[in-house]
Amino acid sequence: MPLMPEDMQKFFSPRSIAFVGVSRSAGRFGGLSFLTKYKEAGYAGGLYPINPKADHILGIKAWPDLESLPETPDLAMVAVAADKVPEVVVACARGGIRHIHLLTSGFDELGGEKGRLMKARLVAVCRENDVLLIGPNCMGPYRPASRLTAWGAIPGLAGPLGIISQSGGMTQRLTEYAASLGLGVEKAVSVGNGSVLDALDFLEAFGQDPAIRVIGMYLESVADGRRLMDLARGIGRTKPIVVIKGGQTEAGARTAASHTGALAGSRAIWEAVMRQANMISVETLDEWLDTLMIFAHIPAPASEKVFIIGGGGGSSVIYGDTCERAGLRVPPLSAQTMQALRQLTPEAGSIAGNPLDHWQVFSDAPYLARLIDLAEQDPGIGLILVDRLIARTAFHMDVTFDPTPDTLALLQQRSGTKPLVFVVDSEGGDPDLAARGAAVRALFGTAGYAVFPGIVRAARAIRRHTRYHEKRSRMI
Amino acid sequence: MPLMPEDMQKFFSPRSIAFVGVSRSAGRFGGLSFLTKYKEAGYAGGLYPINPKADHILGIKAWPDLESLPETPDLAMVAVAADKVPEVVVACARGGIRHIHLLTSGFDELGGEKGRLMKARLVAVCRENDVLLIGPNCMGPYRPASRLTAWGAIPGLAGPLGIISQSGGMTQRLTEYAASLGLGVEKAVSVGNGSVLDALDFLEAFGQDPAIRVIGMYLESVADGRRLMDLARGIGRTKPIVVIKGGQTEAGARTAASHTGALAGSRAIWEAVMRQANMISVETLDEWLDTLMIFAHIPAPASEKVFIIGGGGGSSVIYGDTCERAGLRVPPLSAQTMQALRQLTPEAGSIAGNPLDHWQVFSDAPYLARLIDLAEQDPGIGLILVDRLIARTAFHMDVTFDPTPDTLALLQQRSGTKPLVFVVDSEGGDPDLAARGAAVRALFGTAGYAVFPGIVRAARAIRRHTRYHEKRSRMI
Repeated sequence: MPLMPEDMQKFFSPRSIAFVGVSRSAGRFGGLSFLTKYKEAGYAGGLYPINPKADHILGIKAWPDLESLPETPDLAMVAVAADKVPEVVVACARGGIRHIHLLTSGFDELGGEKGRLMKARLVAVCRENDVLLIGPNCMGPYRPASRLTAWGAIPGLAGPLGIISQSGGMTQRLTEYAASLGLGVEKAVSVGNGSVLDALDFLEAFGQDPAIRVIGMYLESVADGRRLMDLARGIGRTKPIVVIKGGQTEAGARTAASHTGALAGSRAIWEAVMRQANMISVETLDEWLDTLMIFAHIPAPASEKVFIIGGGGGSSVIYGDTCERAGLRVPPLSAQTMQALRQLTPEAGSIAGNPLDHWQVFSDAPYLARLIDLAEQDPGIGLILVDRLIARTAFHMDVTFDPTPDTLALLQQRSGTKPLVFVVDSEGGDPDLAARGAAVRALFGTAGYAVFPGIVRAARAIRRHTRYHEKRSRMI
Repeated sequence: MPLMPEDMQKFFSPRSIAFVGVSRSAGRFGGLSFLTKYKEAGYAGGLYPINPKADHILGIKAWPDLESLPETPDLAMVAVAADKVPEVVVACARGGIRHIHLLTSGFDELGGEKGRLMKARLVAVCRENDVLLIGPNCMGPYRPASRLTAWGAIPGLAGPLGIISQSGGMTQRLTEYAASLGLGVEKAVSVGNGSVLDALDFLEAFGQDPAIRVIGMYLESVADGRRLMDLARGIGRTKPIVVIKGGQTEAGARTAASHTGALAGSRAIWEAVMRQANMISVETLDEWLDTLMIFAHIPAPASEKVFIIGGGGGSSVIYGDTCERAGLRVPPLSAQTMQALRQLTPEAGSIAGNPLDHWQVFSDAPYLARLIDLAEQDPGIGLILVDRLIARTAFHMDVTFDPTPDTLALLQQRSGTKPLVFVVDSEGGDPDLAARGAAVRALFGTAGYAVFPGIVRAARAIRRHTRYHEKRSRMI
């Protein structure tokens, strides 16, 4: 069902929202949770809780029914019991509300005859009443720019991502993770069982949305594989589409059936569809975030020839191995670069080469900036990967200051164009170190750099980026 | 060169240490760094800095030369310039010191004719004088129980691991990481270029060391592949040997040559040796730690049939997929278990099954304990994997307390025997969350549970464990 710009407006920038199925007192998860969070997020439109037994809920005037509202809300957020849903859909339609977010679960994900009937009844009542419904069994729309953020990062951060998901939890965590790295979301939608509007309806709409540059999807099933392929082929030419396909194994598929009623389909078919449409396939939340981030921060095609700047002999060996195993190249540097590098690095205890091993990079921002300049001029290098170990992990160095602000200040003056990627690996058990690493990553991310907590994640994300662009250039 | 128990004693539990090449004032990395750190760690033996120009160094009496010492030290830590090393070796031998840790670099890792000659001269002088030398270009011995901890975790934690490494940096980070998770080291040794004593000499000795239960190696090269295979086959029958082989790609091998002078050898040969000797192959520091930890905490063979307890529909799907992709099985539960589970989980918004999806596991320790009991009685389940999301990441839950202490207290009363593995995934950008996650992992680790910061790492570590035991049972 194609979504018109007006429909997107009503779902993601509603002027007012009615809440149907909102209890007076907190307890179970439901409409009140959403009302609370929309208020907390600073959503500025009208909030209309419907409850015939209450005058006010959370200090907001409550209304006995939809008919008594002073205006027609753009959106209804519905959380009544599953068997009451059809009559609420009819009431919404009568009141002029065509756009519904249905939180309630207990439809096809139950399985069996009961689940099938519940779904059929819901779909029929929406069709008969010309209602566009997100759900059931889902968290619905999310848009930081509208402060429409009852879930996920609250109030969230606006940015270039568009997220479409059959899992509210995965999207919640993704938006939180991205926001804390300075990466924002234009629109996200948790579609749940996708019984009326499904993931592909939103994919089509996001493809036309100029504010969305990179699309992420979490899918458990798709009713129409041909439509997915057609849409992805068209949209993927200008916007990378990064997909986690859940339910690719026996256990995953069994769980997906209970989660969103999805019949997950065979892995082989999925992989073929993904490949032919140049969608980028990832397997975990971390990979999803990493890949969305690298496409958001490095829009142009980048070369797979990486210069690794870091320190530690063993680390350098492993970093080189990891990048090449991931399908990147870590080529020898040009004679000219090597000559300049040898001036800058002592013979013993360091390794002038690619990877470059010299502890000084961890504490000396101007030195790091010189190395980056050298790489910029080496024609054999296309991308610069900096291992930015945080200070206290460097052995026997009495460094307590954080060189990150100096580094970022110097980088702002940089005239080079080769993409820079940072690794800040603070995993090592120590809580203080873990917190400092996360803080340093946030600084790099907010400054617009792709930043990763480990070399494996960095190398694989870079490779997904280069592979997408290689393939796109062949497809165009 | 076989190491006798007496040699191991002198290297790892020396009664006194002479420092040759120790400057009066801090600055460059060298003997003074080690003297400082041994003192700081609380090493209780004699410390003898040799320096003819100083009365005291760091408040410790200095001696003009080795001959003037009041006793014969068990160990000499040597950090003089590379060209002075041979004469120092001779002086040590004359003074009755047969055990040397040589920090100095500038030998075969330089490459070329110069490097080759430097190495040959060093090896010859050690042979002629019957000297056992660790190095050159290395951090030497490390043993928390002796407070012989100038590098790595200081003063470190004693435990079941034995680490042999051609990289000081990798070992330093591993010991720190392990210590912060409550996992200790019996002995570690950074062998550097391994010119006199090499990694295999220590492998042989660690194989006979009753305090070492699990062995970790970081190798860039081995001079004698046949000896490695013979040793590993024998030792691997009772002690798992977890190996990172650095330099398996072109870039890695090039760097390894500059790092420790290693000729890394072909990847195919390495893999064959590893497989035939049932060594466990890992590729990164994280995998090294994860695998050492799971073998340390789960000594007996475990089944690959995993019950996953966690929450979130999407997470459950991805967890199931991840485990099965890693080669584990996530089987359906028995009818009896399912019947009991359905009593414990609501129909809507949760999934009674494997994986089990119910948010309550994150906040309710007695509920989690009941689930673990159920899994204990299910004959189709061999290992229990608990996704212990830390409280504030659970959506819309007003949980600010940390259920970890309650959980650990309940687990202490547990009579079951199936291994328990925890995942505490706090990666998500937020520094506070990262710190809290690390703290929770430390609690589980210290209590003796294998604990991981993500499902992928957990699943792969479990699979390495089951594969080692499957293979061992066929080999015996």
